[in-house]
Amino acid sequence: MEQKLSDFTYTIVGLGIMGGSIAKSIRKNIFFEGGKGKIFAIDKNENSLLLAKKQNIIDDGFLTNEASKILHQSDVIFICIYPHATVDFLEKHKNDYKDGALITDISGVKNLLQEEFKNISPSNANLILAHPMAGGEKEGFESSKSEYFENHNYIIITQKENKSQGYDNAHELLKKIIRAMGFSKITETDSENHDNKIGFTSQLCHVVASAMVESAEDPNITSFGGGSFEDLTRIAMINAPLWTELFLANKEKLVNHIETFKKHLTEIEDLIKNDDSKELQALLEDVRIKRIQMQKQSEKKAE
Amino acid sequence: MEQKLSDFTYTIVGLGIMGGSIAKSIRKNIFFEGGKGKIFAIDKNENSLLLAKKQNIIDDGFLTNEASKILHQSDVIFICIYPHATVDFLEKHKNDYKDGALITDISGVKNLLQEEFKNISPSNANLILAHPMAGGEKEGFESSKSEYFENHNYIIITQKENKSQGYDNAHELLKKIIRAMGFSKITETDSENHDNKIGFTSQLCHVVASAMVESAEDPNITSFGGGSFEDLTRIAMINAPLWTELFLANKEKLVNHIETFKKHLTEIEDLIKNDDSKELQALLEDVRIKRIQMQKQSEKKAE
Repeated sequence: MEQKLSDFTYTIVGLGIMGGSIAKSIRKNIFFEGGKGKIFAIDKNENSLLLAKKQNIIDDGFLTNEASKILHQSDVIFICIYPHATVDFLEKHKNDYKDGALITDISGVKNLLQEEFKNISPSNANLILAHPMAGGEKEGFESSKSEYFENHNYIIITQKENKSQGYDNAHELLKKIIRAMGFSKITETDSENHDNKIGFTSQLCHVVASAMVESAEDPNITSFGGGSFEDLTRIAMINAPLWTELFLANKEKLVNHIETFKKHLTEIEDLIKNDDSKELQALLEDVRIKRIQMQKQSEKKAE
Repeated sequence: MEQKLSDFTYTIVGLGIMGGSIAKSIRKNIFFEGGKGKIFAIDKNENSLLLAKKQNIIDDGFLTNEASKILHQSDVIFICIYPHATVDFLEKHKNDYKDGALITDISGVKNLLQEEFKNISPSNANLILAHPMAGGEKEGFESSKSEYFENHNYIIITQKENKSQGYDNAHELLKKIIRAMGFSKITETDSENHDNKIGFTSQLCHVVASAMVESAEDPNITSFGGGSFEDLTRIAMINAPLWTELFLANKEKLVNHIETFKKHLTEIEDLIKNDDSKELQALLEDVRIKRIQMQKQSEKKAE
């Protein structure tokens, strides 16, 4: 008989907003009828572990120095820490997994991990790099919630080479878990394409929102706001250390996107400067059509 | 005895998303117990008028060529059409108002109207320029709703000179109506400051969102979206003729804002290019603090 998702033991490494939301989502969507499995968490912050245990989100919590013993018992491991810390963790614990376990991460940059794949991939278990496209401007376990994931995208990084022996099973299992957590669309691509696309949809937007806030002369500017500035800059309530790391790890692609964006910005600026109402209106009509098309596309995927 | 707001006759000129929302808000928030007054509308589109009448939002509708006769009977007139059209309407109907009537507009640029103030201000009634800071990417009467205004800002352009005789009464009346409609904060300022601030919070955001959509190489980019790109570019589903007019009417200030924004964008880009993680993180911390401060400021105002 096939194993149920609630028969597995899950370990979340890093119980911040993302790790916490994953734990909550597994508790709610996979263990809704109980199950033989468990949810464990590893974190350096004992308070988060205690709180999560008290709320019955995890069955037990372990400090970072106790990681090895609990990894050995885990079928599915979500590594939910910063990108470089993910590489370090994977390297350090390369030999600490159960045979055939699924290990996956949530890092927002992927080439960094792909380049180290041989060094970080365990010999007896399956590392599948992936990226849940969800979250918010908030931080920490207290801000986590399973609803963050509903109708969101999840990206899995395909491994053409370097596939572990149990890769296909682990890959199927990961997709089952992702769907159970409520994500609406899984996209599979390589780390290069991931970093290029995410450099645009996520990183460039954070850079633009940050530059917009830096441009505000007046701290009371929101008295003159009708919603546009607020929506555009909400993500500027940014986790500075994390995004510094993400921006620099994807430097080349991000800088290319900034350059392309500046080119289009200057194009619009020039039409305004030149009072070219005909071309400006044509450009804005084009923008409108493109954006409505994107809306339709994203509604389609969520069906 | 003081007149109640529901004793007045209101006329909405232009029954699009803004005019329609004003009519709906007056019906809901001012005529909730009925009243001796009326709500009329003037539009070139007969279907909008018929629909609004059928829905009991307006008591009667009039085509543009019938405007004069209904203006003569109106105590409060909201002009909800494009900026240049507002100037033309005011000029044309300068002598068509009831003595002491309140005439106000919703145009997103104000210097344009302020410069023409002598030519557009009626001799026997009170023109008060104003700007409800609300709306959305939608258009037309069908998209209008009174809820757009709840907890939003309203800006009134102060007239230091050129004040009409009944100005103070009209000014008090306008503020009463605005509060009744559910707006949470009224800011009074001159047209110069209005256009500068709106050039930033509203127009620059629309330019940036448009440039972002133009930069997207892939129409399926939303598969890689986690919400940031979607939130940032929602306003790019733009009403092209209206925003062309707004951008060009505020050209100088908007171009200055674009230049300042590009400077800050390039500053962030350079820190990324130079791998300057220390300065980049410090800048993002500053952005975070500023944006959280703005959030607090805007929550305070809504109390």
